[in-house]
Amino acid sequence: MRLRGRKGIREDIERQKELVVLNARDHKGKWSELFGNDKPIHAELGMGKGRFISEMSRKYPDINFIGVDMYDELIRKASEKAKMAHGIDSEDTEKESNEVISIPNLRLMLFNIEQIEEAFAEDELERIYLNFSDPWPKKKHARRRLTHPGFVEKYQQILNSSGEIHLKTDSQSLFEFSLNSFADMGLRMRNISLNLHADGLNPDHVMTEYETKFAGQGMNIHRCEVVVGEQALAAHLDNLRKADS
Amino acid sequence: MRLRGRKGIREDIERQKELVVLNARDHKGKWSELFGNDKPIHAELGMGKGRFISEMSRKYPDINFIGVDMYDELIRKASEKAKMAHGIDSEDTEKESNEVISIPNLRLMLFNIEQIEEAFAEDELERIYLNFSDPWPKKKHARRRLTHPGFVEKYQQILNSSGEIHLKTDSQSLFEFSLNSFADMGLRMRNISLNLHADGLNPDHVMTEYETKFAGQGMNIHRCEVVVGEQALAAHLDNLRKADS
Ligand SMILES: C[S@@+](CC[C@H](N)C(=O)[O-])C[C@H]1O[C@@H](n2cnc3c(N)ncnc32)[C@H](O)[C@@H]1O
Ligand SMILES: C[S@@+](CC[C@H](N)C(=O)[O-])C[C@H]1O[C@@H](n2cnc3c(N)ncnc32)[C@H](O)[C@@H]1O
Repeated sequence: MRLRGRKGIREDIERQKELVVLNARDHKGKWSELFGNDKPIHAELGMGKGRFISEMSRKYPDINFIGVDMYDELIRKASEKAKMAHGIDSEDTEKESNEVISIPNLRLMLFNIEQIEEAFAEDELERIYLNFSDPWPKKKHARRRLTHPGFVEKYQQILNSSGEIHLKTDSQSLFEFSLNSFADMGLRMRNISLNLHADGLNPDHVMTEYETKFAGQGMNIHRCEVVVGEQALAAHLDNLRKADS
Repeated sequence: MRLRGRKGIREDIERQKELVVLNARDHKGKWSELFGNDKPIHAELGMGKGRFISEMSRKYPDINFIGVDMYDELIRKASEKAKMAHGIDSEDTEKESNEVISIPNLRLMLFNIEQIEEAFAEDELERIYLNFSDPWPKKKHARRRLTHPGFVEKYQQILNSSGEIHLKTDSQSLFEFSLNSFADMGLRMRNISLNLHADGLNPDHVMTEYETKFAGQGMNIHRCEVVVGEQALAAHLDNLRKADS
């Protein structure tokens, strides 16, 4: 039974060639070709069930989005959510298996983030979203945290000169670790929030599945942005100067 | 009645010439002369009842400490606490008013932090402690927060090349504000903690009055260090490199 279930999932995501990318390595350095345009590319690493990336891709048609996860079942769930968000009726599309399901500015990528540099070339991404990444609370697992310097160095490589990392998490310990990690690497942070939902949310705020759950339980949501690229840093400093005068 | 009380306090602190400094401006650029040596000077801005500075001055005889507050009553209370911490019986000393109460490495300074640059010359301090500073939660009072860039610029002036700022607070909103303030100013942070008492305290940890109270109520204590001086920064980077290899 289990096997058939998994096989079914695999077949399902394999069918969705326009939405799901199973061979990410083949697109390294060529993602703009895949999207057919030069719009900036924003990726969510560890997208889970895909609510955030679906909603973002609907709200921002001028950005190309890539949702990354390593579980095919989550890729499948995210594909359902994406189609829903974009008003595509998945009942119909499943019946006519020849019909191409396409969301021009969204791809769902089955991949392990540990090898992220094998999927993206230098400067290929403009933004990385890390939403509610696994906290790996035990010290001996620190290297698995997606904000460990080992990972952040990879992000620095693949982010372009406008590059930023946007982090959201309920986990106080992961947030603390992340702030120290960014600080130790000499990266500039901004818009640090220790309780994002406290003062009412920005109307443009897009929630993730985990965010809805944890904020609903009254837990604090932490957030920060990391200014990685040189141009992003210059623009940030310029804004600070303007705010100052 | 009130007047007499206040007058009594004033007379009391005026009497303690070796411990209490009422004319801080006169010592600007000459604090080492006052202490009679060139040991580094660490100041706590807003020391309150003085438990922290008393305890620190007892633990670290090779550092000169200055506790700053703007209320004479707190200066008096702190002087009592300091004498206690250093094993000086204040009953005795009060009777013999001619006896000089002296703690070689501690001074309590009645002063308003808003004019802090009038009390210390450039490079005169090695460390500034900000412990449980008033949070001033209303946005319109942001300029009064002791980590507002307006204050931090003054600290940068008076701190020397080994200069650091060590911040502790229960207030989530003040801590968030402070992190953003330091980040926006391009200052390097380290040892950021969102729940200092969570993992058991360092045996060398010295508590303040407010810390005892708030930690006792189960509130999170936030802490961070800011590396201000160039030499401090170089040493910090060196440590990071060593930890890395
Ligand atoms: C806690 S969930 C958060 C999901 C979503 N971002 C949200 O906020 O609702 C973390 C996700 O990261 C994925 N993940 C963790 N480590 C990964 C890795 N090394 N490669 C790819 N995905 C990973 C997990 O499969 C999981 O879906
Ligand atoms: C909340 S108390 C904290 C006292 C102590 N550091 C502790 O942790 O227990 C803040 C202290 O800062 C002092 N303070 C606030 N603003 C000040 C200023 N502008 N100049 C001097 N002292 C100030 C107050 O008088 C008060 O004693």
